[in-house]
Parts: sequence; structure tokens; C-alpha cells
Amino acid sequence: MLNLDPMERGYIQLYLGEGKGKTTCAVGLAIRALGAGLKVAFLQFFKPETSSEVKILKSFAPNLLYKNFHITGFVKGKPSERLKAKIREGYEFFKKLLLEGTFQLIVLDEFVYALKWNIIELNDFINLLQNRPQGVEIVITGREAPTELIDLADLVTEMRKIKHYYDKGVQARWGIEK
Amino acid sequence: MLNLDPMERGYIQLYLGEGKGKTTCAVGLAIRALGAGLKVAFLQFFKPETSSEVKILKSFAPNLLYKNFHITGFVKGKPSERLKAKIREGYEFFKKLLLEGTFQLIVLDEFVYALKWNIIELNDFINLLQNRPQGVEIVITGREAPTELIDLADLVTEMRKIKHYYDKGVQARWGIEK
Repeated sequence: MLNLDPMERGYIQLYLGEGKGKTTCAVGLAIRALGAGLKVAFLQFFKPETSSEVKILKSFAPNLLYKNFHITGFVKGKPSERLKAKIREGYEFFKKLLLEGTFQLIVLDEFVYALKWNIIELNDFINLLQNRPQGVEIVITGREAPTELIDLADLVTEMRKIKHYYDKGVQARWGIEK
Repeated sequence: MLNLDPMERGYIQLYLGEGKGKTTCAVGLAIRALGAGLKVAFLQFFKPETSSEVKILKSFAPNLLYKNFHITGFVKGKPSERLKAKIREGYEFFKKLLLEGTFQLIVLDEFVYALKWNIIELNDFINLLQNRPQGVEIVITGREAPTELIDLADLVTEMRKIKHYYDKGVQARWGIEK
């Protein structure tokens, strides 16, 4: 049995898969943590901060820090240099937060794509996580993750799509998907 | 393409499976909906209202209505008459909300167990959902659901457990699991 003291917590959670619920779950985790008096950093990548939950998350400042590191910029289906630079800025910000130890929960929403596109080197990220300070729970979301990250994680949930109304042509709706 | 007008929305979403993230996702959906100005009813069954997110959810009243229909009471592993009565009370409350149409999102957290234990008759529930008014999105969570409910639902995500620290003996932690 591990020590359950809040200061000892510090697992790595991954939410993957094609089903609905990855970012949504990260939002729910942030709210639960806030309810327990934890401080939360919610860092979002590869999507604009227009989703309806963002203003609610921001309203919990300073107990919740929301930061968005997206910028439009794909060239021929690949991330532009501008976008890559923004993602790297977000990654440096995450490193800083990790070392400071102010936040007990850090969400890296959609971050797996930074690894997929080699914007952030996988070994560097794995090394950072392996040597992280105690007392920080890290939540990472995105469709798929490299095996090395899955191996390192303490909890991995695949949001498996059994059925989705997207397949019937329903687009993202305010308040439900965005 | 279906009509995407917010007043036309009204899908049934199921979050099932053994992985972490079902209630958490329902909490995230509630927050997103609140951010979009929708009214949310969060009805919780088969678990006490002690989880850390509950006080945050309650703080959004009257835009969010939180109600808990749990009561301790299992006899030899089966729900007691007292517990069954409480669940039925919650079900009647849900029916009332559906007809009133005040809420655009209604969460029935862990409700599938009411069906599993035949506290609520499946045909009655299916019939209620089939004849529901327009403009209400319904989110139902729990480990497993009957085929008839899965068939009726518009979106089904299985939270598949790839890896969980529970299996290493880690108990539920404040701010993360409860």
C-alpha cells in the first residue's frame, strides 16, 4: 500500500483514444482537485481557448492557472515553425511549473501531438517526468501516446468510441463538445 | 446533417467501462455546459456526496442543480428497501425535471445500477427516454449498461482500463478520485 498523504501524491495519468471524454475528463479532474483545495495548472495545446469550459476554469484563478499554447499554423498538414515555437514555449513553461512546485495537479491537454510530431523530443519528456519532484499529479490527454509514455504512466484509460454522433454528421456543439 | 441549434440538441450519452473517468467526464461536461450558459442538473446515485467536486458543482446554483439520491443500505450484497426507495425517489425527480424542461443537460451519475438491480424497470426507462421532450441532453454513467440502452444512446464511450494504480493497492485519493 502506497502512502496516501496528499503531499506524496504524484502519479501520471493518460487519457487516450478516439472516444469523447478526454479533455472533458481532464476538466472534471481539475474541478475535483480544486474542490479538495489543490492548486491546478491547466495547459492546453493544439486547440484554441474558445471551448466553453475555459472561462469557468479561468474563473478559479489563482487556484487554477489556465494557459493556452495554441497558435494557428499548419503548412501542408504539418505544424509550422511558429506553431512549433509556441509548443516549445508551453513545454518550457511546464518545466518551470514542475520545478516551482506550486501546483499539485498539472494538465497537459492534447500534449501527445507534440511528441507525435517530434516538436518535443520523447526522451527529453520521459526523462523530465522520471526525475520530477514529488507531489505533482500529471494528466496528459490526446488520441494516442508512444509506448514509452504508456509504460511510464501509472494510470491509462482509453476512451474507446463505441458509438459517436459525429459519425452521423453531427458537428461539435456549444456547451457539449466546445 | 442534423440541426445544431442549441434548442434542438438532445442526445443521450453513455460513459461506461472499468477505467477511471466516467463521473469525472460527467463533471467536465457539466462545467462546459455551464460555460456555454446552459442549465445543468447533476443527479447522483449509489454514492455519497462526499467527493471533492460536489461543493464546486453546488457553488454554481441555481444554474446547476445538484441532488444526491444515495443512502447507505446494502443487505447481503443487495440494495435494501430503503435504498431502493431513495433511487425511485431520484427517478421520479428526474422525470419531473425532464417534463419541466428547465435544464438542458441532465446527468444521471452511476444510474445504470438502478437498472442492473431492477430497481427501475428497463422498459419504463427506455420508454421515458424515447418519449422525452426536445432540447435535453442526457448523460448516464456506470460500469455497464443493458444492450437496449446502448442501442438507444447516440454516443457511447467505454472508459477502458489499460492500467490503473488501484491494481497496485493505491486507494482513492482526495482531489483525484474523491
